[in-house]
Amino acid sequence: MLIVKKFGGTSVADKERIMNVANRCIKDYKAGHDVVVVLSAMGKQTDVLIDMAKDINPQPGKRELDMLLTTGEQTSVALMAMAMSYLGVPAVSLNAFQVAMHTTSAYGNARIKRIDTERIRNELDLKKIVIVTGFQGINKYDDYTTLGRGGSDTTAVALAAALHADACEIYTDVDGVYTADPRIVKNARKMKEITYDEMLDLATLGAGVLHNRSVEMAKKYNVQLVVRSSLNESEGTVVKEDVKVERMLVSGVAADKNVTRLSLIGLKDKPGIAFKVFDLLAKANINVDMILQSIGRYETKDISFTIPRDSFDEAYKVLNDNKASIGAEEISYNNKVAKVSIVGAGMMSNPGVAAKMFETLYNSNININMISTSEIRVTVLINEQDTDKAMNAVHDAFGLAD
Amino acid sequence: MLIVKKFGGTSVADKERIMNVANRCIKDYKAGHDVVVVLSAMGKQTDVLIDMAKDINPQPGKRELDMLLTTGEQTSVALMAMAMSYLGVPAVSLNAFQVAMHTTSAYGNARIKRIDTERIRNELDLKKIVIVTGFQGINKYDDYTTLGRGGSDTTAVALAAALHADACEIYTDVDGVYTADPRIVKNARKMKEITYDEMLDLATLGAGVLHNRSVEMAKKYNVQLVVRSSLNESEGTVVKEDVKVERMLVSGVAADKNVTRLSLIGLKDKPGIAFKVFDLLAKANINVDMILQSIGRYETKDISFTIPRDSFDEAYKVLNDNKASIGAEEISYNNKVAKVSIVGAGMMSNPGVAAKMFETLYNSNININMISTSEIRVTVLINEQDTDKAMNAVHDAFGLAD
Repeated sequence: MLIVKKFGGTSVADKERIMNVANRCIKDYKAGHDVVVVLSAMGKQTDVLIDMAKDINPQPGKRELDMLLTTGEQTSVALMAMAMSYLGVPAVSLNAFQVAMHTTSAYGNARIKRIDTERIRNELDLKKIVIVTGFQGINKYDDYTTLGRGGSDTTAVALAAALHADACEIYTDVDGVYTADPRIVKNARKMKEITYDEMLDLATLGAGVLHNRSVEMAKKYNVQLVVRSSLNESEGTVVKEDVKVERMLVSGVAADKNVTRLSLIGLKDKPGIAFKVFDLLAKANINVDMILQSIGRYETKDISFTIPRDSFDEAYKVLNDNKASIGAEEISYNNKVAKVSIVGAGMMSNPGVAAKMFETLYNSNININMISTSEIRVTVLINEQDTDKAMNAVHDAFGLAD
Repeated sequence: MLIVKKFGGTSVADKERIMNVANRCIKDYKAGHDVVVVLSAMGKQTDVLIDMAKDINPQPGKRELDMLLTTGEQTSVALMAMAMSYLGVPAVSLNAFQVAMHTTSAYGNARIKRIDTERIRNELDLKKIVIVTGFQGINKYDDYTTLGRGGSDTTAVALAAALHADACEIYTDVDGVYTADPRIVKNARKMKEITYDEMLDLATLGAGVLHNRSVEMAKKYNVQLVVRSSLNESEGTVVKEDVKVERMLVSGVAADKNVTRLSLIGLKDKPGIAFKVFDLLAKANINVDMILQSIGRYETKDISFTIPRDSFDEAYKVLNDNKASIGAEEISYNNKVAKVSIVGAGMMSNPGVAAKMFETLYNSNININMISTSEIRVTVLINEQDTDKAMNAVHDAFGLAD
């Protein structure tokens, strides 16, 4: 078997953890498997490097920032190879140039285009464990790029796809995907299996276990993922196309507190206003999520929408600078909101799911500000202080507990 | 003009110094020159990385150690590019892959074979300052190599040669090459010019201003070097083939305390013994310097030689393990010795120079243990405690003071 194993920064934060990961990989190697390991930078090293950069230049160029950040993974892969060699197993570390990991040219947010597998295959043929830098690539100018936060997951999936690996294991500090965040919902249950689509909605919605681009890529190339803990031997959660167990209506509940609700009040009811607003935000690279437009009963109308809370300052500035040309009487906002979502492939054929969620929240005396739905997801915007109560109530109502 | 400027680790140790170097380079850029900058890793970063490696694996593989160490220069070049960009000048950092800097395959001690200049020329044509990682290269396997301690000097000279640069400036924490170490000889004088050969002897003899491989390469490709201070605007010392000013007999005095004298006593007077001894040491990678063999007046003879003091443990072990097969009655050593040398292109045609040095030392009551000479150099081995006295006496005797 060829196994790709990905370990995040926490798993390689110090000598002891590096040795732990090395031993784990060696176990597979000694069982006769070909092992490719993908690593992130050690601990908080990426943040340390960003701070160093901003100390020199508050707005460092993205090309040079990527040049700096890529040293993080190169450090961890070199140390890991030394650890394995210390433990008596031949290993070799490879960076994005050596692999080569070709990406688009967008510094800081590149997409993987193509991976050369020759070097990796040669090293595997020499019976070495191959350790590859996650998160980084090279573009057509022969410059380093990075894949954005959590990009090492994507590196692992892309490598598994390119190498036709038999398994792609993502090691994190939780031991799988849960029906809800176990820190908030005490009786949350670990799922044995979940579909790509459910995982995608959960990743996007803030469950934070897997980087969503990695799930998209796994779905596209049909790479079976396993999410496991680097701290114990627990079996983890398998992410794949079809799940055999009988479907529950709802698979999981997720919350996201990185949300702000913005409203433009008193807009003229004429065509093109909405386009203008969202075009301005798109040009400032601000992701708009839920959108609600009041129905034109009066002369003016309102538009409300949610954005990531950390984009609020920029979004407010863009809108305020263009208030006159948009024709808004007032801009209001609420930073004390949260999104709570239920996800489940089973809800496609069960129209009562959304209603049941709303009823549950009503019974818990929780007010709903906005609603958004997709085929396999229902999301509500509520007051932030109600988040934990809402999650527990919904989790219980859909029978997700152990 | 195309100028290559090299700054060592001390010159880029923190934000303030990075800004200082950036400003210095920008001054040349704004005067209309093409500027290529070569940097070492920040401060003691290379030592920090070596310690990290040894903590994981006391004997890290050289291939992986180079993979780790090269992150040091990549960090400093990226930060320097950000600093220049902050100061309003376009800059781009390049590592050994991007240049590309081809070397032999010897990890940890590679030699530069060939430098591609296309990327650098393209970036210079775009009116950017180009910042290149010193010390590192890539070999035919597409692996990182390093050039050994002080290798960034060599990178700078090799780049100057490949780019046919008009000047190659090596910035250090001293403001040029002195007739003797100014910390020891108070009235030491800064030289305006020095020949490659004199500089080579001074570098080898422990003056420590320039890496001697860089001087060899400068001589081979006729690259005119300037040694200058990164802390002031002083003119520095020019290193070149021919020096126009009237030659002094002696250009400078240098001392080296990293010396141990070893003696093999009571060797049989038969052929092949010396070969056997020095072959054993060569195989252990120990550099032997001065060699003295007693003349065969008696049945047995002695061989004395000097080695770097930090190789003593290993050398003693090798010799002691082979004591019987060498046929030595006794191995004696002295760790309390030092080499003092005078260097000068002018001494070739002046046979009295060595005699004058010996007389000076005799008058200062300093005992000479061993003597070694070349065309432009005289070296004596003396007791370590006499080093400073010897340097001052010789410096005065040859009229080197201000």
